[in-house]
Amino acid sequence: MPVYTCTTTRSALTASTKAALAAELASIHSRVNHVPSEYVNVVFYALPEEDVYTGGRPAAPLIVDGWTRTGHPDEQVDQLVREIADAATRVTGVPAERVLVIIGNSPARFAIEAGRVLPEPGHEDAWVRDGTG
Amino acid sequence: MPVYTCTTTRSALTASTKAALAAELASIHSRVNHVPSEYVNVVFYALPEEDVYTGGRPAAPLIVDGWTRTGHPDEQVDQLVREIADAATRVTGVPAERVLVIIGNSPARFAIEAGRVLPEPGHEDAWVRDGTG
Amino acid sequence: MPVYTCTTTRSALTASTKAALAAELASIHSRVNHVPSEYVNVVFYALPEEDVYTGGRPAAPLIVDGWTRTGHPDEQVDQLVREIADAATRVTGVPAERVLVIIGNSPARFAIEAGRVLPEPGHEDAWVRDGTG
Repeated sequence: MPVYTCTTTRSALTASTKAALAAELASIHSRVNHVPSEYVNVVFYALPEEDVYTGGRPAAPLIVDGWTRTGHPDEQVDQLVREIADAATRVTGVPAERVLVIIGNSPARFAIEAGRVLPEPGHEDAWVRDGTG
Repeated sequence: MPVYTCTTTRSALTASTKAALAAELASIHSRVNHVPSEYVNVVFYALPEEDVYTGGRPAAPLIVDGWTRTGHPDEQVDQLVREIADAATRVTGVPAERVLVIIGNSPARFAIEAGRVLPEPGHEDAWVRDGTG
Repeated sequence: MPVYTCTTTRSALTASTKAALAAELASIHSRVNHVPSEYVNVVFYALPEEDVYTGGRPAAPLIVDGWTRTGHPDEQVDQLVREIADAATRVTGVPAERVLVIIGNSPARFAIEAGRVLPEPGHEDAWVRDGTG
């Protein structure tokens, strides 16, 4: 249900690091937000060095931009953001100082996956069951 | 006024399929949200295979990420999301199981196009008229 | 704290124009939103011509997609959007008619930078001070 986009410079992450980060983000999101990991998408935008700036100068941040459905309990969102940020540094070796995680949100009804409108937070189990029944 | 970004693997869509999807999304958004199609932007991020994951494994989803102004009636948003998702599958042939559509939103006053702040939902006609008068 | 993504066609902006726009956006965001410019990220997605459409036809818009924390005063957001849009045209030479600026937002607690949850609007000074103390 969610998408995480990880934006870096082209040389920042190897293919195996990207695969490891994708697996870790899927695992975290699945556990914290009660979504099967098969519904967690992770994409990487590995940009030319001349296309990434911090403070107006060429830089190499790791920007993780996620999306989740509106309405998860505050503690759950806090935990999600914290775990995603920790994993980004732990898996990639990019120091925390250069890691920025932002989670956006919109109502579940603003999203469709596998042909069905996403469930409200807390109703994931029934949604998944109905899709495989 | 809106932007739709379509994220896929590099080999997923041909140039003519991308053009057809861009035209269809513009047509749908224009009809449902009462915006001239000349204001609908569609961009494609066609990523290397190693940069796209679902459930922690390399995958080939089609992720359509849209943006609309806050405040459209619920039924209108429901219709928009449904039609965009149906079109994504119909035009590209990517099965619905691999299509994810997410519509984000922020207030109209958070956006400027052609030098003018966007109109609140329901006031599109006057906005367009004022811009061409 | 924020990220601005600038999406254009590959041939639209030179490297020096991108650097100039990144510096200008950092300067504006820093001044209007009271954030040190070293916390402002700007990235460019310079896409193949066949991947960018307006109104269903190949086009060359400049789409600036920003993110800010929810809760800034309305006048501040209005000023931010206006100055960003003006700068996009002034620095790049892309006419205002082809410039679209959209600012998204989510709560400060949905974001972590440098290992710390972002501050609510109005509490930036203490946050920065605590990080360097």
